[in-house]
Amino acid sequence: MNFELIHQDKETGARAGRITTAHGVVETPTFIPVGTQAAVKTMSPEELKKMGVEILLANAYHLALRPGAETVKGAGGLHPFMGWDGPLLTDSGGYQIFSLAELRKITEEGIHFQSHFDGSHHFFSPEEVIRIEEDLGADIIMPLDECTPYPCQHDYAKTSMEMTCRWARRSKKAHNQSPQALFGIVQGSFYPDLRKACIETLIDLDFSGYALGGLSVGEARILTYQTLEFCAGLLPKDKPRYLMGVGSPVDLVESVKRGMDMFDCALPTRCGRNGTAFTSKGKVVIKNAGYREEFIPLDEECQCYTCRNFTRAYLRHLFATDEILGLRLNTLHNLFFYTRLMKRVREAILEDRFTLFEREFLTRYRGGS
Amino acid sequence: MNFELIHQDKETGARAGRITTAHGVVETPTFIPVGTQAAVKTMSPEELKKMGVEILLANAYHLALRPGAETVKGAGGLHPFMGWDGPLLTDSGGYQIFSLAELRKITEEGIHFQSHFDGSHHFFSPEEVIRIEEDLGADIIMPLDECTPYPCQHDYAKTSMEMTCRWARRSKKAHNQSPQALFGIVQGSFYPDLRKACIETLIDLDFSGYALGGLSVGEARILTYQTLEFCAGLLPKDKPRYLMGVGSPVDLVESVKRGMDMFDCALPTRCGRNGTAFTSKGKVVIKNAGYREEFIPLDEECQCYTCRNFTRAYLRHLFATDEILGLRLNTLHNLFFYTRLMKRVREAILEDRFTLFEREFLTRYRGGS
Repeated sequence: MNFELIHQDKETGARAGRITTAHGVVETPTFIPVGTQAAVKTMSPEELKKMGVEILLANAYHLALRPGAETVKGAGGLHPFMGWDGPLLTDSGGYQIFSLAELRKITEEGIHFQSHFDGSHHFFSPEEVIRIEEDLGADIIMPLDECTPYPCQHDYAKTSMEMTCRWARRSKKAHNQSPQALFGIVQGSFYPDLRKACIETLIDLDFSGYALGGLSVGEARILTYQTLEFCAGLLPKDKPRYLMGVGSPVDLVESVKRGMDMFDCALPTRCGRNGTAFTSKGKVVIKNAGYREEFIPLDEECQCYTCRNFTRAYLRHLFATDEILGLRLNTLHNLFFYTRLMKRVREAILEDRFTLFEREFLTRYRGGS
Repeated sequence: MNFELIHQDKETGARAGRITTAHGVVETPTFIPVGTQAAVKTMSPEELKKMGVEILLANAYHLALRPGAETVKGAGGLHPFMGWDGPLLTDSGGYQIFSLAELRKITEEGIHFQSHFDGSHHFFSPEEVIRIEEDLGADIIMPLDECTPYPCQHDYAKTSMEMTCRWARRSKKAHNQSPQALFGIVQGSFYPDLRKACIETLIDLDFSGYALGGLSVGEARILTYQTLEFCAGLLPKDKPRYLMGVGSPVDLVESVKRGMDMFDCALPTRCGRNGTAFTSKGKVVIKNAGYREEFIPLDEECQCYTCRNFTRAYLRHLFATDEILGLRLNTLHNLFFYTRLMKRVREAILEDRFTLFEREFLTRYRGGS
């Protein structure tokens, strides 16, 4: 994997770059649709490619349980298994395992846990996770880390961050032979001293990219943004920066402004299925009875398949009658909206008008539809 | 609507024809995917068009309840509402109303019933159904009829068939001004004298096409086939013959052989969603653990999007993890299989090799995969 920083905005931290992998190019800033179980919920790879999606995320924890990393390896890896020939990133699933609460126990060696769907017992060490991710064969892989909750005491955050750093070192060592790009994950809760110490350790280990973890866990947005700005100032400029699990369209624009390059979030797909659409004029809750006879597209400025062919009235009907096509069409629109937003952000950066773009976008998005 | 009989098989009743509507051509024999609520479950219009589907079916009863015929009319009719610009057929929904059992009461005037989803009270007369179908604006519309259960006493079947004929006359009268094609529906259970009387009455009324109703309601297949052959011998050759609610791939081939031109059935879409795939070598129940590591397509002879891009192992994984993409890919394959089957049947008829085709198809289909 190679990262090239193409343009740095003069007024903000916003940057345009390009990641080159064995499976193709990803232009940054980029949004990565979430395909936890080797499928972006309701979407086909063909639709994703067509709308300009350049990279997908899958989850090592989920895939290790079902269908099993060996099965995916037997298929020739995740790319042929899921029919996606573009760049792929796998998350370790550490975040999902920590969410298991009583079903998991963390030790220095790794995490003991029970499967969330059949109760079976498992153990993930940093080395085991790398082995799984090598079987899966994504272009970019994430090591096992501990994502601290919010709020979190300094003591716990420090101890946890130090373990995450030791796990990062072990992951790096376990991964030494593979052509896949391994990223380091920055933890340290909302304590600048801990974030700084973590970044210094990870830079020392020299990863292909750096991810910010432990954000968007319930904290006020101002705290997220402060942490982003602080970390961006310490991270190397020549490596991609991946903000994990973020976020809304506004979050994305605000995080690009603070120097972030990559994002993943279940929001556009989850909202797609629960009937919330993101549009240039804000959110539309398509199930509302008020849309029953609105014979206009979700977003009149949008060129996605959904907006070119169907009305709000039809989408509302599909949701009212539990038609799966409704989940598809709304998810497709949301992912198109996110992808297009990142393309527009990138163009604005390249043309030195990011601040203007940000202002106009926010005004319209918050203005309502 | 215009129907042209292009070729009649020498050895069997099989025929190739062409229906021309204001929204395009349908080559017969044809299979009509079921889009009850103005959507073919899990499928987009684009996918259906791409796979060669030429005509869709929607249900007047379902659409009158949700979103309401007025709403669809407000959208400009069913074609723009559902984003399908090809030929469309609406069924009256009589069959669905009769399935309501205790929730409906039949009188000479029409049917009083309660909605299956909110209990609200409604009344459908033959005239009201035509009015609804005119609002919906499909190219071919079906009148209200009574579908008798199986088994059914001769007395009841006679009384019911005679009412269906009176309803057909009223429908014809109500519909007189519209450019839509109205079909007549032949009832009469499995009594040749009743079927004959019904057909004579309907021919006298001169419909644009004739449908066989009241079949595939639980009877032995031999009885279905006998009834088809008997009716086909009495129906005019220059009008399309529509066998309602049938059936499996074998049923389709066997019914074409007996002179039928059009078919609709929920089987390929319903099976698509429950994990059963139709292939050239018979059915594949994709959820079975045995497919876990089968890295081959559902059907190696199939050129559908699913078979060109995904393996049985991946489809099994999607069903095991409740991914909606699995329902989509399997439905897409099944509809492609049905559509392709009808195209191959038609080619065989045109090339005077239908009997050979039938034998080869059945041998392979029943041979298993």
